[in-house]
Amino acid sequence: MEEQTRRVITLLTDFGLSDPFVGIMKGVIFRINPQAIIVDLCHGGSVYDPSEGAFHLLTSYRYFPAGTIHVAVIDPGVGGPRRPILVACGGHLFIGPDNGLLGPLAEQDGSTVRVITANRYFLQPVSATFHGRDVFAPIAGHLSRGVEPAECGELIDDYVRLPLPRAVRSGTLLIRGEVLHIDRFGNLVTNIARADLERVATGDCPTVCVVSVACREVPIVAHYGQVAPGAPGAIIGSAEYLEIFVNQGDASRFLSTGRGSDVVVRRKDSEARCL
Amino acid sequence: MEEQTRRVITLLTDFGLSDPFVGIMKGVIFRINPQAIIVDLCHGGSVYDPSEGAFHLLTSYRYFPAGTIHVAVIDPGVGGPRRPILVACGGHLFIGPDNGLLGPLAEQDGSTVRVITANRYFLQPVSATFHGRDVFAPIAGHLSRGVEPAECGELIDDYVRLPLPRAVRSGTLLIRGEVLHIDRFGNLVTNIARADLERVATGDCPTVCVVSVACREVPIVAHYGQVAPGAPGAIIGSAEYLEIFVNQGDASRFLSTGRGSDVVVRRKDSEARCL
Amino acid sequence: MEEQTRRVITLLTDFGLSDPFVGIMKGVIFRINPQAIIVDLCHGGSVYDPSEGAFHLLTSYRYFPAGTIHVAVIDPGVGGPRRPILVACGGHLFIGPDNGLLGPLAEQDGSTVRVITANRYFLQPVSATFHGRDVFAPIAGHLSRGVEPAECGELIDDYVRLPLPRAVRSGTLLIRGEVLHIDRFGNLVTNIARADLERVATGDCPTVCVVSVACREVPIVAHYGQVAPGAPGAIIGSAEYLEIFVNQGDASRFLSTGRGSDVVVRRKDSEARCL
Repeated sequence: MEEQTRRVITLLTDFGLSDPFVGIMKGVIFRINPQAIIVDLCHGGSVYDPSEGAFHLLTSYRYFPAGTIHVAVIDPGVGGPRRPILVACGGHLFIGPDNGLLGPLAEQDGSTVRVITANRYFLQPVSATFHGRDVFAPIAGHLSRGVEPAECGELIDDYVRLPLPRAVRSGTLLIRGEVLHIDRFGNLVTNIARADLERVATGDCPTVCVVSVACREVPIVAHYGQVAPGAPGAIIGSAEYLEIFVNQGDASRFLSTGRGSDVVVRRKDSEARCL
Repeated sequence: MEEQTRRVITLLTDFGLSDPFVGIMKGVIFRINPQAIIVDLCHGGSVYDPSEGAFHLLTSYRYFPAGTIHVAVIDPGVGGPRRPILVACGGHLFIGPDNGLLGPLAEQDGSTVRVITANRYFLQPVSATFHGRDVFAPIAGHLSRGVEPAECGELIDDYVRLPLPRAVRSGTLLIRGEVLHIDRFGNLVTNIARADLERVATGDCPTVCVVSVACREVPIVAHYGQVAPGAPGAIIGSAEYLEIFVNQGDASRFLSTGRGSDVVVRRKDSEARCL
Repeated sequence: MEEQTRRVITLLTDFGLSDPFVGIMKGVIFRINPQAIIVDLCHGGSVYDPSEGAFHLLTSYRYFPAGTIHVAVIDPGVGGPRRPILVACGGHLFIGPDNGLLGPLAEQDGSTVRVITANRYFLQPVSATFHGRDVFAPIAGHLSRGVEPAECGELIDDYVRLPLPRAVRSGTLLIRGEVLHIDRFGNLVTNIARADLERVATGDCPTVCVVSVACREVPIVAHYGQVAPGAPGAIIGSAEYLEIFVNQGDASRFLSTGRGSDVVVRRKDSEARCL
């Protein structure tokens, strides 16, 4: 019993930490399950943007204990017709609005998706502006005490998918991708995965490939210190995606580059082009 | 015993999270009670401003378990003559400086207020600049282990009240209020409560009323999506106060409006005026 | 057993809270020890700067329970040749990169330093960019379950020291120090300790001394309210170092002064000089 109720619940929102929104969600959870272990996944980042949160969830959840319940609230459509959903994926549970935030998880092999209709668990009255408090936190609290996903609502298949943009092969280029996310350090996290690189590189990619971004060529290296302080490079980052960095600097500023910018991997011996 | 000592303690400060101040307060509490459950309510917002924190406490505490101990430290007078106080309100305990931060809670029906004089619980020596660490956190730790409020000090009645500004009826206007708080999304949270609206509106307020702010008229709606993306509206927010928002935008920037700005609710058929 | 595994683990990083880095580290720890109590020490501040974190650790750790494990990750050299180390100091354990971040703790009387080589505890494969997740968090998790420091690696003595700059006597000046840290409120935290002041002042320092900073003289006071709102002063802060403040204001902005600026304590009757 004790074991079962000491479940980890993570929170990912666009609420920031200057307002009491996140704290209130924790209060709601602890009222339902004082044994819960609540972890902040992240609360800053861009507001109103499910795609950024979707990327963070997808690349983070594996590091939590099996059975963790992840609550994700980036929810510009709160109060409107968009549905609350519950995704089971890889032994973890995910709760959030059906706006694409949970789409990439729902698409994983073996995932199931339910629409949350069990309003007996909701805080009443349900507000029009804060379903994190009134819908998602209470559902997480009850799941952490052993309520089964099937008690929350029926299986559905028509959820919002919002797939992350995929890196592709393109003409004579090896891979064409884009910047998905700028992290706290100004690193440009791309959608080019380690597996993408391993598929295209006939030899060892760092020795035969180069990365083009913002009209610059940057080398692929094995750790930051292989370029001089202040110089740019590319590396397989901790999320297993190619990242553009500046050693002890800020690549986003250095390259004046933001989300959505093109990033290309090509052979060193191919013709350079300014994208 | 276990049950009793696993009390929730919330922390609200103006300390931010870049310095170790909040972390140190948690260390002090865990040294006294390793079973405490500590929750961050919020730590950003304006510095040196008890009125903002007072609003957050007043609208947040009900979502925490009965018996929760709320520590609030927005304390520009630290080290001077201002007193530490302990407020019991609605089954919750509140600890903080006597500068108005706890005033609205102290004014609730049935509340009691004590001056904290039990320096046997304080960290020694007490610094002149960080009573969050030396006074408020230790008192919270000991209360969470079962120390009674009466052991902390005597009842008082001459605490600092600092009432939140109240919305009022004004001439031919239905309600005149003001902006109390700008949240993370740029929403303008006013002091016009749902009850104020229900009292003045002969019919259904959203259909007969309009809100004037910054020389603009905005409609009252039931959820954000009832205005177009980028357009302003007014809604009863999660704290049960009228809020001015921009759908998927920032109302504070859109209307160039800040705290203290006038907000008026009037009948749609009354004469519009630029405030 | 229960007692032993409910150890406090603190986290200090330069990761901020907009990305999921800190949350992921907590996930890794809870997978190893679900009984751990994890506390954020701080995550903002300057990036890539071990000296700031070193100061925060040194002045914060005593407020945590004996046996606390402090994980510190300000790590611009991640993935390169710099070693992970484990410092035992004053009944606490500290884990981080060997870049000076733990240097001042390692230098304390009775401290021991080990190089962490026990890669059986690491997450595999170890990334080149996120040892907080792959090395430091897992080591903390295992230590919190009772793994002994000696199981992590051998004692070393050639760690990076990076001593904090020391305040010194200088000519006719009583003490010459510098600004080590700007806190959230804009206070200038110097390296002039209370003990330094007590050593030089023949009488009561506040009455015989004055502080010069940025071509201004500011009085030493016992609490903020002893100068008028908006005026500057100097005070022994909560870390037991002299701090320059502006009452209810921001000294860093008021004096246009940053880290590394000179701060001098001199006798009131000595000749004023613009530094």
